[in-house]
Amino acid sequence: MKDRITGHTVLTGLLGSPVAHSISPMMHNESFRQLGLDYAYLAFDVGTDNLKTAVEGLKVLGVRGFNLTMPDKNLMCTYCDKLSPAAELIGAVNTVVNDNGVLTGHTTDGIGYMEAARDAGYDLTGKTMTLLGGGGAATAICVQAALDGLKEIRVFNIKDQFYGRLEKLTANITARTSCKVTLHDLSDERALYDSIETSDILTNGTSVGMAPNTDACLIKNTDVFRKELIVSDVIYNPEQTKLLKLASEKGCPTFNGLYMLLYQGAAAFKIWTGQDMPVDIIKEKYFTR
Amino acid sequence: MKDRITGHTVLTGLLGSPVAHSISPMMHNESFRQLGLDYAYLAFDVGTDNLKTAVEGLKVLGVRGFNLTMPDKNLMCTYCDKLSPAAELIGAVNTVVNDNGVLTGHTTDGIGYMEAARDAGYDLTGKTMTLLGGGGAATAICVQAALDGLKEIRVFNIKDQFYGRLEKLTANITARTSCKVTLHDLSDERALYDSIETSDILTNGTSVGMAPNTDACLIKNTDVFRKELIVSDVIYNPEQTKLLKLASEKGCPTFNGLYMLLYQGAAAFKIWTGQDMPVDIIKEKYFTR
Repeated sequence: MKDRITGHTVLTGLLGSPVAHSISPMMHNESFRQLGLDYAYLAFDVGTDNLKTAVEGLKVLGVRGFNLTMPDKNLMCTYCDKLSPAAELIGAVNTVVNDNGVLTGHTTDGIGYMEAARDAGYDLTGKTMTLLGGGGAATAICVQAALDGLKEIRVFNIKDQFYGRLEKLTANITARTSCKVTLHDLSDERALYDSIETSDILTNGTSVGMAPNTDACLIKNTDVFRKELIVSDVIYNPEQTKLLKLASEKGCPTFNGLYMLLYQGAAAFKIWTGQDMPVDIIKEKYFTR
Repeated sequence: MKDRITGHTVLTGLLGSPVAHSISPMMHNESFRQLGLDYAYLAFDVGTDNLKTAVEGLKVLGVRGFNLTMPDKNLMCTYCDKLSPAAELIGAVNTVVNDNGVLTGHTTDGIGYMEAARDAGYDLTGKTMTLLGGGGAATAICVQAALDGLKEIRVFNIKDQFYGRLEKLTANITARTSCKVTLHDLSDERALYDSIETSDILTNGTSVGMAPNTDACLIKNTDVFRKELIVSDVIYNPEQTKLLKLASEKGCPTFNGLYMLLYQGAAAFKIWTGQDMPVDIIKEKYFTR
């Protein structure tokens, strides 16, 4: 927002539950202020039952757009008038833009991850990734990494009720991009370690290792951590998961999920305002590690 | 709002069309800031067609409350779960408070007028008023003045399609308060001047004299402006209507509608936050005449 909200100030915001802890209001409002843009960003605690009513309300209130977090990301797809290719593929939306009553859903989580990788100094074009997990974060990363030109992505997931859906998703991504995406059983340790040995980057897209269960780690045999392997994690609490700690001790370059959060927000900001978030300022104010 | 919007900041706002010009966002946000209250107030351009959807959305978004301006004040009554006695009498709402999903409609325009009179130094208890007009502003003043202990109010309105409704309203107010309210034909000049001659205060509750038609005035014979007569106007643009100018020239004390706007907002602020708006600061910042 500008220094003062007036009758011209346009609303943006975040829907989900819980949301009060979110860093997004600070990140966006400070960016609006820095650039002199006349928007304000507020968080609204809205769960599944009220999502439709909230979205219809926001539309007629003339908001410019909003973010979605748990548990609203998947359901929101059904209330959008249009979906970006990535959002359509994964069936989830974290950013909606309102163009005079037409709601278009985007997913910027994967963009956030890819930007975080670039920020850490890694160009993943043409590279091979071993990706742990098939939930919201992992599938967002998978589709964006494929769109951004990775050569191959090997997704490892437990054989749960979502495995069939993941098979379709990985086949779809392979069909629609120049990236070969395959799905594997996470319990097949031999296949997992073979994959890591021939990958450029290993990415944890699950919540394994997140606080309070900081002792958990999906990789048991640290021999797979050769020096050339980039190891990344979508988790940022703790800053260094057990996975990143073990990999780091073996000399692997690592990065965590903190800047993924920053850059998914920057991508949403760009969609709404057409302008670049002043990420250096936002990093310093809210993402000091 | 506080200096910074966070995930905890609660939304309030204004519905109507147009609203972008409104002073209310500045008035309320500055008051929130002064008192360190974690709210933000935005204006939303919402007309009749979208009011229901907007209100249902605001309810599930968990807003603390909102104001209504034209054209939403009457229709809003039908979307409230409860109405204050004054709002029920006049069939209009300018302030809604949301108590965990229960919407209660209030009308603070009349409170704003009565506070403006007090601010100008006049205690109208036991007094007699001649009130010009039977629209939204006039009826809000009428009911609040009756509730606040005026002895008698004589409403003058043209015999339009609302005259019958006004007859019922004035009868209702008389029945429910200790004030005697009567309705008269505005075209009956003799009755009007007789009324003014035995009144303590003459109040213009119509838009006659408002910019750009600043030459208009409902009182043709300035002999009625005796020195003891208080003359007030709900109009604040121009600051001095022709009515107030003519009365002032005859030595009458006068006040315009500017502080009615301030105090209707202060009353809404109190309903939402339980705290007193810092009116002296708000006056100086936004209501300097």
